[in-house]
Amino acid sequence: MAGNTFGQLFKVTTFGESHGGCVGCVVDGCPPGIEISGGDIQKDLDRRKPGQSSITSPRKEEDEIKILSGYFEGKTTGTPILMLAYNKDMRPEDYDHLKEAYRPSHADFTYEQKYGMRDYRGSGRASARETLARVAAGAIAKKYLKQKLGIEILSFVSQVGEIRMSGGIGDIGEVTMEQIESNIVRCPDPETAQKMIELIEKMRDEGDSIGGVITGVIKNVPAGLGEPVFDKLNADLGKAMLSINAVKGFEIGSGFAGVVKPGSEHNDEFMVSDGKIKTRTNNAGGVLGGISSGETIYFRVAFKSVSTIKKKQNTVNKNLEEVELEASGRHDPCVLPRAVPIVDAMSALTIMDHYLRHKAQNL
Amino acid sequence: MAGNTFGQLFKVTTFGESHGGCVGCVVDGCPPGIEISGGDIQKDLDRRKPGQSSITSPRKEEDEIKILSGYFEGKTTGTPILMLAYNKDMRPEDYDHLKEAYRPSHADFTYEQKYGMRDYRGSGRASARETLARVAAGAIAKKYLKQKLGIEILSFVSQVGEIRMSGGIGDIGEVTMEQIESNIVRCPDPETAQKMIELIEKMRDEGDSIGGVITGVIKNVPAGLGEPVFDKLNADLGKAMLSINAVKGFEIGSGFAGVVKPGSEHNDEFMVSDGKIKTRTNNAGGVLGGISSGETIYFRVAFKSVSTIKKKQNTVNKNLEEVELEASGRHDPCVLPRAVPIVDAMSALTIMDHYLRHKAQNL
Amino acid sequence: MAGNTFGQLFKVTTFGESHGGCVGCVVDGCPPGIEISGGDIQKDLDRRKPGQSSITSPRKEEDEIKILSGYFEGKTTGTPILMLAYNKDMRPEDYDHLKEAYRPSHADFTYEQKYGMRDYRGSGRASARETLARVAAGAIAKKYLKQKLGIEILSFVSQVGEIRMSGGIGDIGEVTMEQIESNIVRCPDPETAQKMIELIEKMRDEGDSIGGVITGVIKNVPAGLGEPVFDKLNADLGKAMLSINAVKGFEIGSGFAGVVKPGSEHNDEFMVSDGKIKTRTNNAGGVLGGISSGETIYFRVAFKSVSTIKKKQNTVNKNLEEVELEASGRHDPCVLPRAVPIVDAMSALTIMDHYLRHKAQNL
Amino acid sequence: MAGNTFGQLFKVTTFGESHGGCVGCVVDGCPPGIEISGGDIQKDLDRRKPGQSSITSPRKEEDEIKILSGYFEGKTTGTPILMLAYNKDMRPEDYDHLKEAYRPSHADFTYEQKYGMRDYRGSGRASARETLARVAAGAIAKKYLKQKLGIEILSFVSQVGEIRMSGGIGDIGEVTMEQIESNIVRCPDPETAQKMIELIEKMRDEGDSIGGVITGVIKNVPAGLGEPVFDKLNADLGKAMLSINAVKGFEIGSGFAGVVKPGSEHNDEFMVSDGKIKTRTNNAGGVLGGISSGETIYFRVAFKSVSTIKKKQNTVNKNLEEVELEASGRHDPCVLPRAVPIVDAMSALTIMDHYLRHKAQNL
Repeated sequence: MAGNTFGQLFKVTTFGESHGGCVGCVVDGCPPGIEISGGDIQKDLDRRKPGQSSITSPRKEEDEIKILSGYFEGKTTGTPILMLAYNKDMRPEDYDHLKEAYRPSHADFTYEQKYGMRDYRGSGRASARETLARVAAGAIAKKYLKQKLGIEILSFVSQVGEIRMSGGIGDIGEVTMEQIESNIVRCPDPETAQKMIELIEKMRDEGDSIGGVITGVIKNVPAGLGEPVFDKLNADLGKAMLSINAVKGFEIGSGFAGVVKPGSEHNDEFMVSDGKIKTRTNNAGGVLGGISSGETIYFRVAFKSVSTIKKKQNTVNKNLEEVELEASGRHDPCVLPRAVPIVDAMSALTIMDHYLRHKAQNL
Repeated sequence: MAGNTFGQLFKVTTFGESHGGCVGCVVDGCPPGIEISGGDIQKDLDRRKPGQSSITSPRKEEDEIKILSGYFEGKTTGTPILMLAYNKDMRPEDYDHLKEAYRPSHADFTYEQKYGMRDYRGSGRASARETLARVAAGAIAKKYLKQKLGIEILSFVSQVGEIRMSGGIGDIGEVTMEQIESNIVRCPDPETAQKMIELIEKMRDEGDSIGGVITGVIKNVPAGLGEPVFDKLNADLGKAMLSINAVKGFEIGSGFAGVVKPGSEHNDEFMVSDGKIKTRTNNAGGVLGGISSGETIYFRVAFKSVSTIKKKQNTVNKNLEEVELEASGRHDPCVLPRAVPIVDAMSALTIMDHYLRHKAQNL
Repeated sequence: MAGNTFGQLFKVTTFGESHGGCVGCVVDGCPPGIEISGGDIQKDLDRRKPGQSSITSPRKEEDEIKILSGYFEGKTTGTPILMLAYNKDMRPEDYDHLKEAYRPSHADFTYEQKYGMRDYRGSGRASARETLARVAAGAIAKKYLKQKLGIEILSFVSQVGEIRMSGGIGDIGEVTMEQIESNIVRCPDPETAQKMIELIEKMRDEGDSIGGVITGVIKNVPAGLGEPVFDKLNADLGKAMLSINAVKGFEIGSGFAGVVKPGSEHNDEFMVSDGKIKTRTNNAGGVLGGISSGETIYFRVAFKSVSTIKKKQNTVNKNLEEVELEASGRHDPCVLPRAVPIVDAMSALTIMDHYLRHKAQNL
Repeated sequence: MAGNTFGQLFKVTTFGESHGGCVGCVVDGCPPGIEISGGDIQKDLDRRKPGQSSITSPRKEEDEIKILSGYFEGKTTGTPILMLAYNKDMRPEDYDHLKEAYRPSHADFTYEQKYGMRDYRGSGRASARETLARVAAGAIAKKYLKQKLGIEILSFVSQVGEIRMSGGIGDIGEVTMEQIESNIVRCPDPETAQKMIELIEKMRDEGDSIGGVITGVIKNVPAGLGEPVFDKLNADLGKAMLSINAVKGFEIGSGFAGVVKPGSEHNDEFMVSDGKIKTRTNNAGGVLGGISSGETIYFRVAFKSVSTIKKKQNTVNKNLEEVELEASGRHDPCVLPRAVPIVDAMSALTIMDHYLRHKAQNL
């Protein structure tokens, strides 16, 4: 109920504060026999870790994960998998001045309203460091989905500030991991990527921050995943993405832009292709009535600019006094490049959970 | 797991098919002692029912709900509340031609892929008639939230096709239920409403359909609701809205448009007003770190155009044959006017559940 | 959270009060395609209904169940199944004198402490009439388990008051449904059955009541069901049985009596029989480490005597006044004969849920 | 779904294998602001740890727990609490001979049937070492229940083999923690304790083991806890106890013995005492209709003899070959003395969860 668990059958419970002993997760309900190496997980963590490029936070965490249970002779055993990363490069003194002040657009004020107290060191539980655990759990899900069902999950930065990658739905299905990883901003179009990097560097140099959009893609999902009423696949994907720090919007398929199309244009006609039922267009984004149709799932996720900025800001403290604030912690001028593996992880966790749910009832 | 239940403490389980015996819900976990009259619930149902105006489906269902348990001497008792509406104006023969064909952008195909069968009469479980039960349950939640916490929930149509209501965040907080109910399209601006109605009538006459956007508003939510990690209040609101038929997008606060603002502009500074901590702006949309801040919550929900249209369409059937389809069932040219009370209901169910969750752990 | 749902994947939510509109349940998560006739369910309900013999309550309810959703062309569809029985032979006036008094060993007092109010007509939600819904849901589970896995579920009255059926574990596996149904007390041994009936008749004539023990048996459960830590199969069976009205104890395998045996006697040695691994004895009762071993599961359930008796009793009322009480409602002198199908139903619901859980993760 | 979590609002998820990296738990949903010291938890762990006396396993684990999250400045913060104990005194080579053989009455065979594999070192996840995590989580719950509601939880060994402590219900309420802790077997009656110790020593010397009964007591529980239908307080207590390794039976109040009493004797009359409604007797064991009545809750838990014995046993291995087995691992001749704090912990976790559930809906 306290909302630290994602999934109903493939359950991931994360724990840990940014400057406490560790962050990590317990994965419960994982099928036994999945071959996993620390390397599989580390590869994804490295895409998320701070300090990986000139446009990310310089905090130096190696984000080295340890698997401490549910794992034997290189395989998952079916029992709970504990994974954790100890916190190392902590500088709690960086946060002393935040003990009493509420940083604008941060969770300091609301945590205190909720719990009557808060761990003020490095945003505590509200720190994006929590997402490290999601990425680790997602790596296991991705492996299973790829091996068992051939599902491919990827995402990329399609907008930073006003800089938008052009291209339509057709292109989305063609994007490759190589293209995404070919530059530090994780935009598959090199030219757009360069402009994005320049904008992020500009914001960093000004002590400011900027937001953007990540486009998520899930290929080869079999038809039939998703539950028809409240737990529609699109609803659970939306929740998964909206649970990521700084996310303010989610749209699937034609999304907000598509509402202007009449039904006669928006409807995706069925047709037969290679002896299989397909749709001619995919405005739906791969989900019909909350259930996967077998077409490529794609969606967009809006991230606001990072709240922590170096520029001076006005705010108030516990004692209702007005105070000025200047961030001295290490932060990202733009979270999107590091958020790409988090979006992938949340896609994987959502599909994995729904696959097991579908399997339980219908397979 | 089969996804027919919403909420963790205030649990609403809906059941029923469009052309089966009935539709309805069980509400479990409802606080005892809430005074409810059938009229309270009927008032909301009447806003959702078909046949209410010239721009809605002419299907004639009175949507009369019966409370069959958990209710004694005018009050909820704390035990499960069964509410149901029998189906009356059924014309299953209208759907005989759909037995084998998959309607474009409907759930016929995916249900059959999922379950290996489907109740083809009137879309079965995928029918929007299911939302009747949500509205009934939401009416109870709204009553409790209003009486106990002074929370006000409303929503309105802010866009139909290309016709957009103008006005900024400031205006949103001022919208009243009277304004919304002053016209059949439920847009608080009379001039825009008139244009929307004309567009919907045009689509209806052409045998086509159109989508749009509903803006939701929740006022007077106390600070502290929402769980910090996966079950962020915005994530659960997003899921709630994305679980409504035809919804393709959700954004809260500044949403997709806000990603272009640098942190220095987007951040909402805290200030003291009347001895209370408030924010000067509300780009966050009333939620910080997944937890309500005490500011007005507002969000936008994108509805695609209705899939059922009278225009001829191409599709395929079970036997992989190409067929032509012409809808003969009764349908809405635009769902938005009738979706307004559904958005309200899902807001109410989300806030109610999170209030009880917060109460359990922290109050 | 309000505890009206049983199961995690095969979820049964019951609703309804003894003298309200109806009692029934929603079954969510049921596999699609199970062929069910009203007769399948009615047969089990008839074993539970009042008025079936001279030793049960004379209340005349036909307990006729209606299936109102999730069912199409004779089969389950995978969507929620609503089943309900309207209340007919209600005499709320029988309960008027109970409006204020707390009946000894009934739930009147505790409901009022919990909810601040209660529906005093016929015990409201605490009435055993609620178990009708369990039996209906159990009938579906039994059908699936029998057809898909060959699982057989039965139970019988093995003790009434001091009258105990003799015979050891070996005999338990041999008991047949025919033997159980051959007499009105549902004890497979005719001689013991006769003595039990006489005792119950004696208690009835004295305006008193008596308790006893039901032995449950589940045959052909495949090895592997049950979750190893908190949701051990024996723990969930125990909870299932302890949730039945009037149950005060549960033991599996050797149970309380077995604690005196040293490990060298109690341990069940493995052996090979017909090329399969079996155990030589079955003190475990078919469950090892919380997981089914493939051996017959058997357990015993203790039912206290019915609280409602005709004999005069002393008690107090809301106003803290001492009052005398004489029951005028219709009641059973011994619940055990009617509780047999309820034990069967709870066995079926438990095994069904665990089978789906096992299938989701491991099959 | 994989059953490693206990509780719905106060959720305890345990992880870890006997000879893996660690064992521990995540406690989610814990109220913020509970003052806890490592000492509070360690005190309970020391009652459970091996090597504490001459009648327990000589395995030398200090069972030192670390709190790694959800804890700040001496208090719980409301976020997930990670507690873990690293495994130290591991001798996996002790278990090499068990790689292929199935130990009688152990979970080796069923784990392998369930998961297709198993971690054979020291029983892996099925080891009683898992209960360490329950005791740690229970310590937090006990602290809250004691401080907030004055609830007292204790339990004691009332039977070992054939040696039974005499005394009735009245006595149960008088037992003190001092009496329980006055001897190594944890039986409050010194004379019976002595006989129990002698029996256990005899079994140990013979390389055998023995079972017994623990009586649990929970005092000062306010009326109103427990949910009326499936999640009756007695049902959840029963499940909690039946989830402990080696437990084969649970009974509350008059239990199995009470079924012979007619209703007129068994019913607990209400009376007024000191201006409060009380019952004259307490055959119910403190629970009416699944809800706490305010009277003392008491119950009995049957533990079978430990499966691991030094005596030679016959069994089979993976290859269906008959093999002889002689245990060389370190084990307890009788688990009951060390199981007392586990029963306490499970009582605490059950009551805590039900208190939060009651608070959410009704307070």
